[in-house]
Amino acid sequence: MTQAIDLNSDLGESYGAWTMGEDETMLGLVSSANVACGFHAGDPAGILRTLRAAAQRGVAVGAHVSYPDRGGFGRRAMDVASEDLRADVVYQIGALKGLAAAAAAGTRVTYVKPHGALYNTIAADARQGRDVVEAILAADPSLVLMCLANAPLVALARDAGLRTVSEAFADRAYTPAGTLVSRREAGAVIHDPALVAERMARLAATGEIEAVDGSVIRLEADSICVHGDSPGAVRIAAAVRERLEADGVAVRPFAAA
Amino acid sequence: MTQAIDLNSDLGESYGAWTMGEDETMLGLVSSANVACGFHAGDPAGILRTLRAAAQRGVAVGAHVSYPDRGGFGRRAMDVASEDLRADVVYQIGALKGLAAAAAAGTRVTYVKPHGALYNTIAADARQGRDVVEAILAADPSLVLMCLANAPLVALARDAGLRTVSEAFADRAYTPAGTLVSRREAGAVIHDPALVAERMARLAATGEIEAVDGSVIRLEADSICVHGDSPGAVRIAAAVRERLEADGVAVRPFAAA
Amino acid sequence: MTQAIDLNSDLGESYGAWTMGEDETMLGLVSSANVACGFHAGDPAGILRTLRAAAQRGVAVGAHVSYPDRGGFGRRAMDVASEDLRADVVYQIGALKGLAAAAAAGTRVTYVKPHGALYNTIAADARQGRDVVEAILAADPSLVLMCLANAPLVALARDAGLRTVSEAFADRAYTPAGTLVSRREAGAVIHDPALVAERMARLAATGEIEAVDGSVIRLEADSICVHGDSPGAVRIAAAVRERLEADGVAVRPFAAA
Amino acid sequence: MTQAIDLNSDLGESYGAWTMGEDETMLGLVSSANVACGFHAGDPAGILRTLRAAAQRGVAVGAHVSYPDRGGFGRRAMDVASEDLRADVVYQIGALKGLAAAAAAGTRVTYVKPHGALYNTIAADARQGRDVVEAILAADPSLVLMCLANAPLVALARDAGLRTVSEAFADRAYTPAGTLVSRREAGAVIHDPALVAERMARLAATGEIEAVDGSVIRLEADSICVHGDSPGAVRIAAAVRERLEADGVAVRPFAAA
Repeated sequence: MTQAIDLNSDLGESYGAWTMGEDETMLGLVSSANVACGFHAGDPAGILRTLRAAAQRGVAVGAHVSYPDRGGFGRRAMDVASEDLRADVVYQIGALKGLAAAAAAGTRVTYVKPHGALYNTIAADARQGRDVVEAILAADPSLVLMCLANAPLVALARDAGLRTVSEAFADRAYTPAGTLVSRREAGAVIHDPALVAERMARLAATGEIEAVDGSVIRLEADSICVHGDSPGAVRIAAAVRERLEADGVAVRPFAAA
Repeated sequence: MTQAIDLNSDLGESYGAWTMGEDETMLGLVSSANVACGFHAGDPAGILRTLRAAAQRGVAVGAHVSYPDRGGFGRRAMDVASEDLRADVVYQIGALKGLAAAAAAGTRVTYVKPHGALYNTIAADARQGRDVVEAILAADPSLVLMCLANAPLVALARDAGLRTVSEAFADRAYTPAGTLVSRREAGAVIHDPALVAERMARLAATGEIEAVDGSVIRLEADSICVHGDSPGAVRIAAAVRERLEADGVAVRPFAAA
Repeated sequence: MTQAIDLNSDLGESYGAWTMGEDETMLGLVSSANVACGFHAGDPAGILRTLRAAAQRGVAVGAHVSYPDRGGFGRRAMDVASEDLRADVVYQIGALKGLAAAAAAGTRVTYVKPHGALYNTIAADARQGRDVVEAILAADPSLVLMCLANAPLVALARDAGLRTVSEAFADRAYTPAGTLVSRREAGAVIHDPALVAERMARLAATGEIEAVDGSVIRLEADSICVHGDSPGAVRIAAAVRERLEADGVAVRPFAAA
Repeated sequence: MTQAIDLNSDLGESYGAWTMGEDETMLGLVSSANVACGFHAGDPAGILRTLRAAAQRGVAVGAHVSYPDRGGFGRRAMDVASEDLRADVVYQIGALKGLAAAAAAGTRVTYVKPHGALYNTIAADARQGRDVVEAILAADPSLVLMCLANAPLVALARDAGLRTVSEAFADRAYTPAGTLVSRREAGAVIHDPALVAERMARLAATGEIEAVDGSVIRLEADSICVHGDSPGAVRIAAAVRERLEADGVAVRPFAAA
């Protein structure tokens, strides 16, 4: 039996004259690309370039949907009404599917990963979580929702009939309860590539990760999120991939349950 | 043999808290709705409402794609580079198709009608015209392009393998050459509903229309565009529809050649 | 001694091709205009028209600053960081002052009234409240902040050295504690122009208003807010003004303490 | 008599999460900063940071006004109506003046330099040129307009009573007629820092520059524009400044005639 795990990263986040991230480099490291849809980042021509590069590399494509907040890069919590939130998500998925169809024969959007403040909010907020789930089902029920491992959203989505995959964050510390240590606390982000790679190798092999208090917890993660918007982040992504492959763990797109 | 013609109108052009047009009323009068895609007008939730209402009425849906210029309502000529223009058109078509799929079972986008300054520019500008044509073919080659009757764009699109339909403008005067009289000239717009209805009845029956100099010209029009954003415009649309039906001309979505 | 009170209304809220409100009519009824600054509504040319009309009528001008959320009309709570919120407020005040200077000799922006979700949030949220207060002081310490009567913001602003005026809402019901009845509750909005006028006449004469439970409370209001974005709202504004003048209460811009 | 010339550069062009240019480095090299006003680039908080850094360095500040086109970075020609263009310019100047007043005591906006497509258009287009000139006069008649040397705009502005300064582009080739060689032609941009510095030293000393055909032309330039958005550009700016100072030419803000 071959062991395998998915590596995902946020891509397509340049905008007009502004560049963000190293999409080409990251597409050589990850197996799934969360591609911006134009609401927090990404313009159509830039998204199309990222989709073409992903298709050439055989990288899976997810819709990285967001609140409508380009100025805040989708990182600001917004109290969006249900009717608007649902339609915003459908619109973004449709736009990305349209660009994917035009990018290259056979390119498909296979999953949805909400971005930034929307991701954090719906991990626990049932109202907005249901809105996003209903929107995805309305847009295309074959899509998979990528969720924070251990979040209430996972059950909410599955109960509604939506398939999910869970992800761990490569460079983040976890609480003994299996939640992310807040970025406001010291030690929330792990910067050493070797340590991050070691933790992810253990997670891939055993499903276990060491929490900040030294206890060992279980995380059901089908995918590992690595960042790509700084040289340091690319080094971490490369270290994780190298270590996983050295351990005989294949890096490939998740297969949704 | 039953005679028939299509009536089309621009819809879905409200934006957030701002309302434009009388979509419900117009959907009872036209057979094709050019639905805004969010670049010049329309927000996802409002577009979705319009799509649902169109589905209930059996009105055909077209993507009313535009330059990215909400502040100028897409009415300002913009020198958009080819790569951007193509991707912008694909993005808008995809977004509308996504919303249509979520609106109601069986709702489909069947055609594309560029809006405002983009419409006027590509009627004659071959570079931007080719960009739009290529974008539509890349997005979905089964789509039909709705063009200004007698415009160079018609041949350009057909030569590229894209189906087209041509439209006449109900309330506009025509030059002896078959082009629209510029809005800057007196008499460019005809305000009398009865006169407009009379002209469209003749056009539907004979393919002829009287030009500003009194000469009679031929217009190959598969569709008639009526406006819906003022009470006067709605009266004109109603007068045209009533007159056509009184003459035994069915109002129904165009069948693309 | 002549009794007087200020009437204020939100104006300049059209955007591009979209019209909102009846600015011309309202400028004949109110003494202070809260003019949109482009973040939730208003485009520069439209704002300039409203400023010119206000100057002709001798109506005072305030900056109606907002979160950056045109699609949501500034009505959605947003978790904007302090550095951004302060700079956004300064930017909007500056832009409006620039347009006012160009509108007509002697036109000045004399106060700031936050809009929508920002208004509601800072009424009680000390962090964002301080940000707005500091921004106004940095932009122009001679400006006056218009606040919800009885809100914690009033003391916060005065302690920081910013002058304030308090306002009552003409068509809103009040709790016995002097706060607004939530719009989610029945009876939150009063629709009868005569009743609204009667309540405002009493408030202007005595400082008292009847709360929803029939008790009588005191509101220190230097200004009364009337809406102008519907025919019904204009009727209420007209009724309030007529009644105040019949009672010998002059309607004129507030004089800040 | 001390010889002196101004060096200017476009700054404040980051936007939200996206960074552009090396503002801190450039503010140590130039004497005038053309600061983005939010229409093509710049968000209020980022603009404020640039203004504070400029104030600390004693660098003069100009309003880098643009068409409303963030997605195209203001580089796309737009057919903006006069009423809109004038108000857009006044709005941007006002916003920047507001931020400058809040940035540091004594910080002032002293000039206006249109950006990108607007700059290029008004160099020769009299309609839009007049709109910009009238807008500046309405906003603040003490402002100076920075123009392309030898452009028809210079006389247009002066005839209207607006003071101007003319600028040369450090890294651009000139035609024998004194206009810029189009970027579409080979040799339009000069990449060698030493050569650029040599050309600017000659221009500062003699008012002469060698055109692409080897002929020597005169350019009346009160300021030299250097770019700051790439490492190569910063090297050129540094080389120009170093050479000028070595030649005894002081780099300091222009004094408008």
